[in-house]
Amino acid sequence: MKSKTRYLTLKIEQRMEFVNITNQVAEVVRESGVQDGLCLVNAMHITASVFINDDEPGLHADYKDWLEGLAPHDPSRYRHNRTGEDNGDAHHKRQIMGREVVVAVTGGKLDFGPWEQIFYGEFDGRRSKRVLVKVIGE
Amino acid sequence: MKSKTRYLTLKIEQRMEFVNITNQVAEVVRESGVQDGLCLVNAMHITASVFINDDEPGLHADYKDWLEGLAPHDPSRYRHNRTGEDNGDAHHKRQIMGREVVVAVTGGKLDFGPWEQIFYGEFDGRRSKRVLVKVIGE
Amino acid sequence: MKSKTRYLTLKIEQRMEFVNITNQVAEVVRESGVQDGLCLVNAMHITASVFINDDEPGLHADYKDWLEGLAPHDPSRYRHNRTGEDNGDAHHKRQIMGREVVVAVTGGKLDFGPWEQIFYGEFDGRRSKRVLVKVIGE
Repeated sequence: MKSKTRYLTLKIEQRMEFVNITNQVAEVVRESGVQDGLCLVNAMHITASVFINDDEPGLHADYKDWLEGLAPHDPSRYRHNRTGEDNGDAHHKRQIMGREVVVAVTGGKLDFGPWEQIFYGEFDGRRSKRVLVKVIGE
Repeated sequence: MKSKTRYLTLKIEQRMEFVNITNQVAEVVRESGVQDGLCLVNAMHITASVFINDDEPGLHADYKDWLEGLAPHDPSRYRHNRTGEDNGDAHHKRQIMGREVVVAVTGGKLDFGPWEQIFYGEFDGRRSKRVLVKVIGE
Repeated sequence: MKSKTRYLTLKIEQRMEFVNITNQVAEVVRESGVQDGLCLVNAMHITASVFINDDEPGLHADYKDWLEGLAPHDPSRYRHNRTGEDNGDAHHKRQIMGREVVVAVTGGKLDFGPWEQIFYGEFDGRRSKRVLVKVIGE
């Protein structure tokens, strides 16, 4: 079994933003030499997501409005913020969008459908955060 | 390490529907010969889900109503639809229900609790879509 | 390839509660002897979740209120409950919080960010349920 692990570092200037990290993940897959296996990509922070969807700016704007509706930022709404934080909403938004994706590696590549792209989803930005990429297989 | 990859094709006549694909996944596990490992099952399209829950029609009807409440179809609500699509809602419903499941394979079988069944969730049907099944292990 | 499988049993006295199971999962990883691989942790019941977030009681109280708002317990709301159940809401809450997590194992340990902790999320408690932990790798 082969494996390869890499940590991507992202610093997003906005509070909430989505960044396409597909190329960086594909590079880790190439370097792993794995032909057949699985690739895990996860946020290492609990106010961020990794998810797969469309690279379309209108959709991303829709997601932001929708997530703001489901878990508004307003810090006074969350008991969590009594700890001194103001990111209670981010912990909720991340649960909707998910922590991780697992992608098949076939023939040495991410085995994707026609529109699948991997995004880092930031919900409490303006500081450095990490994404873990791990490939295992043969 | 052994591995086996298969692509299931589904064409759902409704816009939104849930289809039990457990038997098809179990067959890939059998054919893989893997006794101990992991099985990834994911939608290859970004307006569809794969999830695990109960095979109970009342629950599926509840899910449809609930998802319609959380992300109504009404095409005018979504910036995404300005691209000419009418499936903005489907991209949102899919995020709630998830893209993929990872299931343990133990003793050559899907290692499931008493009621776990794997479903394909379609949110923008009436055309062919694919589901990827990948088993790795020994 | 090495692998190790363990089933944790939990009996939660409340209807809805979150329990930190990180130490139990870490122990399975240690016993597996896997240095580099993947660890799957999933609820084996369809009214429960496994998720990763913060071990902060205020946040957990926020999650409970939020999930109750998104999928209220009131049994009369769900067709599923016509089967004699009263847990239709639990099947919905579990979809928001997710069934499973996949965690990288690196250097023989769960490869976690600074605040990541694994939780069992119960939405229909007061009976024994199981969580599956499976580690594969080398």
